[in-house]
Amino acid sequence: MINVGIFGATGYAGEELIGILLKHPQVKITYIAAKIDRPVPIAEIFPKFGNQLDLICGLPEVKEASDKCELVFLALPHTASIDFVPRLLSAGKKVVDLSADYRLKDIKVYDTFYETAHKDKAHIDEAIYGLPELYREDIKHAQLIANPGCYPTAAILGLAPAIATGCLELDSLIIDAKSGFSGAGRNFAASQINEDFKAYKVNVHQHAPEIDQELSKLAGKKIKVTFVPHLLPLERGILATIYVKKAQKAAKAQNLVSLYKKFYKKEPFVRILEEGSFPQLKDVVRTNFCSIGIKEETDQVIIIAAIDNLLKGASGQAVQNMNIMYNFPEQIGLV
Amino acid sequence: MINVGIFGATGYAGEELIGILLKHPQVKITYIAAKIDRPVPIAEIFPKFGNQLDLICGLPEVKEASDKCELVFLALPHTASIDFVPRLLSAGKKVVDLSADYRLKDIKVYDTFYETAHKDKAHIDEAIYGLPELYREDIKHAQLIANPGCYPTAAILGLAPAIATGCLELDSLIIDAKSGFSGAGRNFAASQINEDFKAYKVNVHQHAPEIDQELSKLAGKKIKVTFVPHLLPLERGILATIYVKKAQKAAKAQNLVSLYKKFYKKEPFVRILEEGSFPQLKDVVRTNFCSIGIKEETDQVIIIAAIDNLLKGASGQAVQNMNIMYNFPEQIGLV
Amino acid sequence: MINVGIFGATGYAGEELIGILLKHPQVKITYIAAKIDRPVPIAEIFPKFGNQLDLICGLPEVKEASDKCELVFLALPHTASIDFVPRLLSAGKKVVDLSADYRLKDIKVYDTFYETAHKDKAHIDEAIYGLPELYREDIKHAQLIANPGCYPTAAILGLAPAIATGCLELDSLIIDAKSGFSGAGRNFAASQINEDFKAYKVNVHQHAPEIDQELSKLAGKKIKVTFVPHLLPLERGILATIYVKKAQKAAKAQNLVSLYKKFYKKEPFVRILEEGSFPQLKDVVRTNFCSIGIKEETDQVIIIAAIDNLLKGASGQAVQNMNIMYNFPEQIGLV
Amino acid sequence: MINVGIFGATGYAGEELIGILLKHPQVKITYIAAKIDRPVPIAEIFPKFGNQLDLICGLPEVKEASDKCELVFLALPHTASIDFVPRLLSAGKKVVDLSADYRLKDIKVYDTFYETAHKDKAHIDEAIYGLPELYREDIKHAQLIANPGCYPTAAILGLAPAIATGCLELDSLIIDAKSGFSGAGRNFAASQINEDFKAYKVNVHQHAPEIDQELSKLAGKKIKVTFVPHLLPLERGILATIYVKKAQKAAKAQNLVSLYKKFYKKEPFVRILEEGSFPQLKDVVRTNFCSIGIKEETDQVIIIAAIDNLLKGASGQAVQNMNIMYNFPEQIGLV
Repeated sequence: MINVGIFGATGYAGEELIGILLKHPQVKITYIAAKIDRPVPIAEIFPKFGNQLDLICGLPEVKEASDKCELVFLALPHTASIDFVPRLLSAGKKVVDLSADYRLKDIKVYDTFYETAHKDKAHIDEAIYGLPELYREDIKHAQLIANPGCYPTAAILGLAPAIATGCLELDSLIIDAKSGFSGAGRNFAASQINEDFKAYKVNVHQHAPEIDQELSKLAGKKIKVTFVPHLLPLERGILATIYVKKAQKAAKAQNLVSLYKKFYKKEPFVRILEEGSFPQLKDVVRTNFCSIGIKEETDQVIIIAAIDNLLKGASGQAVQNMNIMYNFPEQIGLV
Repeated sequence: MINVGIFGATGYAGEELIGILLKHPQVKITYIAAKIDRPVPIAEIFPKFGNQLDLICGLPEVKEASDKCELVFLALPHTASIDFVPRLLSAGKKVVDLSADYRLKDIKVYDTFYETAHKDKAHIDEAIYGLPELYREDIKHAQLIANPGCYPTAAILGLAPAIATGCLELDSLIIDAKSGFSGAGRNFAASQINEDFKAYKVNVHQHAPEIDQELSKLAGKKIKVTFVPHLLPLERGILATIYVKKAQKAAKAQNLVSLYKKFYKKEPFVRILEEGSFPQLKDVVRTNFCSIGIKEETDQVIIIAAIDNLLKGASGQAVQNMNIMYNFPEQIGLV
Repeated sequence: MINVGIFGATGYAGEELIGILLKHPQVKITYIAAKIDRPVPIAEIFPKFGNQLDLICGLPEVKEASDKCELVFLALPHTASIDFVPRLLSAGKKVVDLSADYRLKDIKVYDTFYETAHKDKAHIDEAIYGLPELYREDIKHAQLIANPGCYPTAAILGLAPAIATGCLELDSLIIDAKSGFSGAGRNFAASQINEDFKAYKVNVHQHAPEIDQELSKLAGKKIKVTFVPHLLPLERGILATIYVKKAQKAAKAQNLVSLYKKFYKKEPFVRILEEGSFPQLKDVVRTNFCSIGIKEETDQVIIIAAIDNLLKGASGQAVQNMNIMYNFPEQIGLV
Repeated sequence: MINVGIFGATGYAGEELIGILLKHPQVKITYIAAKIDRPVPIAEIFPKFGNQLDLICGLPEVKEASDKCELVFLALPHTASIDFVPRLLSAGKKVVDLSADYRLKDIKVYDTFYETAHKDKAHIDEAIYGLPELYREDIKHAQLIANPGCYPTAAILGLAPAIATGCLELDSLIIDAKSGFSGAGRNFAASQINEDFKAYKVNVHQHAPEIDQELSKLAGKKIKVTFVPHLLPLERGILATIYVKKAQKAAKAQNLVSLYKKFYKKEPFVRILEEGSFPQLKDVVRTNFCSIGIKEETDQVIIIAAIDNLLKGASGQAVQNMNIMYNFPEQIGLV
């Protein structure tokens, strides 16, 4: 049984964390905080947690959090985590940071895409990119987890086995992704999504370099994807439709569905569909699963990966990482 | 002033046709029909047309329609038009067919994709593909219009100028399209789309050969696109995100936005956005417009085309074709 | 042909006004303004008006508006109109105010419900409540129209004929109203309505005294309704379900449907359904109509009235009022 | 640990039952069936249950179900349960029937509202109305549970304590209820609800006599409510807004909020909000809770009750009943 805290408890990711952790048999939430006008009982903000969580939500205080918790989840807006991570770590706490602040190893790329100057390079180097399917061993011993972005989780899980084969043209990766509006935060206007649909940040989204970084590592050479995110008129879920050319030589050397199944065969939260079947959001929403469907054409592959952006793409994965860090059964508290 | 009839008046496309034609100053709707259990006043089916259209909707009768109209719109399910087109034409009527029945010039392709055996090859040859931006002159003199499919309208308008340049790798065309559920008809289940999103008929959709046919004609060589349609949880609109590789030589020889503006400069219903701007569905829904945004990358082009699938993708375009056939101002009755 | 201006052009009501007036054959929009950071072409804010309205939208200036227009629509938040109305009127302009600022004749009630101190009592007295079905003659000669609220429009039209009969228990009026989120403005958060539904301001909504005022006038005695508004997860439309006890004596003296039909028989925008039929939002959305269905039970009446809150409940009614003020055909420009 | 079966496993209620029971530590699902063309693995119908439930779903067979289960949930359309209940009971099985077939004690009322002739009066008499808050003791020993309807659950829980006080005018009960479309079944058309809202079966809905029956029992005299259901454009949840006149004498003799809290103080799934607070659907959706808010006016009370129609209004309550029947902790498996 461990005590944990949440900074940013009132946002979408914070709400999900509370919901998951309240049912987690090995965890007690002992501290919550958020950028808030005045301290209020959390049940006032989320009536559904009434009688389940009797905590006051005030402004984040490192000292108080450190006294009360051994691990802190940071569900803060980008750039806000940098203020807290060094202090929490030096207080000996473990941190799972759901923001983008410690994901990009190249600090200049971070500064460019997040339009700021990162002040904590030391911990960028230390941080473990919390994608269990790729970094499980490192996560076990991590003090600081940089929890992956939602789009990158879908894109990287959808592409990792294929890249490992060496059978694809890696300079032709196209990721056409569609996300629910919860990715844009609690205050996103209804008038901006109702009966509407659009692409945004076309090939300039801040998650692109995160995808590039991880795929490049897998490929052993520099990869730059084409990444076009779109905004869906629904709350939760990401579906990424991925197009990749086959390398000339590859032809039909291997069956990709088998290969994906093998790659992920021990993974508790990745599901590979049979050839010709594709996931829909409903299959993964309110679960921590990533579902992947694959179709091989003569000279091209179409891969569709679906996740719940708030779970496998944020809070669910954060708890999965915590489970690994504490050697809990990896699926505990998650569905 | 002309008298027109509508077969299939109770479906989505029929409803839109009625709505448009009731406000069209040169047209009187004198006959409506649909596959229906018993004849009923149309205002019983669509209360909103009460006091505006005092017609009984019964089963389609060629004789009665021919007596009452000089042009008939067929807003019927695929394969159903083939029963009516020959008889209407031999009665000397003009026909705008909104189904797919006369769009594909290669009858074998039709038979394969629509799982039937087409019995009216003669009129396939005669039919004019009703995309005014490409075939305006032929439409003027047509007796039979094969009104384009919704996805093909967006895809072809989005690609026509680029293909004409010869600066693209035409074997790398990827069309990732997203449509509202009205494309799936009036009875599509809410439980299948609510808070959900999915791809369907992945690279095997029946609109793919229609796109291939028209792009091949433009390119002067056989083109086969990768086409993945998706189903949006909203009623109206198609947004197609198109990815094309540049041909090596092209580099940056021409500015695509200028080129598109020039190509469409006299078109009343095509809008080209400035470089870096992209359309969203709200810009085109309930209009007959196609809006197109373009972004050139070093070795690739991203094009986004948006239409209302029920208007520019069906009934609006059908009326635009009628306007051309009768030498009415092309925009009359349309917005 | 008249020149008109719009203050508050960027909100929902302003957008609707622009859309309607652009198609109005007797009107030219010559001035638009809004609370905005810097002046921008209106087509930048609403791409759909591109090529149709070539005006810059800056901060509202009474002088410039007065020079350019003879009538100004104020589509401003409540309390904001009070700054402009006196100046526009003294410049000899006609004003249609879509805010609540001149609707309530009792200034104390206004101050209570809108939590402010009204500074322009004089014009409250002068203002004509712009519900054409009740005040058409006064509207013809008005300088200042207080355009009715959305809920009051539905409630008053739904109750006026019944109250006139004297056959109801007027102290038992219950109005259970449901509105789309556009009533809450452009910035209302998607997370607050998506897959959600709730009552709000239960029997304390600021539209209740407006309903009371008008019904009391009709009844010739003080009426206080029970009014519970709810927020629907859709953009446009209000549906009000109204419950009224019959007065003992009334029994079945009169047929209410006939009575309603007679009351509204010359009204271009009120539709009375046959007994047992009830309107749904789809029947009225994107029209200026109010549709009303009625069911008489032994000792009670159930009335359902539906409007588009942005049209008959705001901008459509504003244009209807303008048409009356200028002796244009009342339906012109409206559907 | 008990073995249970589900008839009607493919509908909304069946899907929810599977989801709940898969996580229920005391239950094993050993048999599922539905009206289906050919037997298929349940994971083919619901991919999300892949790896969790390895059963074939075929047509319902009483013999097989009886061999494999000790309790059967019937999640069938109305009138369909009557074929199975007698046979399951005579095989010694316990039955929780989610249809309306055994709820109405007056068989003539059933026959009228469900337009059929009930053939199993004997078991109507035996059946226990499965609303734990009223009939917990009877449920403990029941063989056949008539699981309450969704609207009745909200309405009865919302009114039971008030009726018990004797302080209300019971002939003035108005229930204005709003339900998500899942209440209308899996195949309800998207075009019928998208951006739409309407009342239906105005004061003639088949759940009205069920509400009347239970409230009359509580009041000790015949009650007939006014009941108007509406259809919301969202999937899950019922919110009932209830209006009741106070009896003259009552004035303010008792505080209703306190009274409600006392009435339900031991109930694990009823939540009474503070005076002036009201529930919204989000507070109860995906939970088995009923949340109730109350506002007392001078001569009237407004009560708002919210539930998830598929959980407390159907499958959750069914499992709650099972828990009681087997003396499991009542909340087990439910949230």
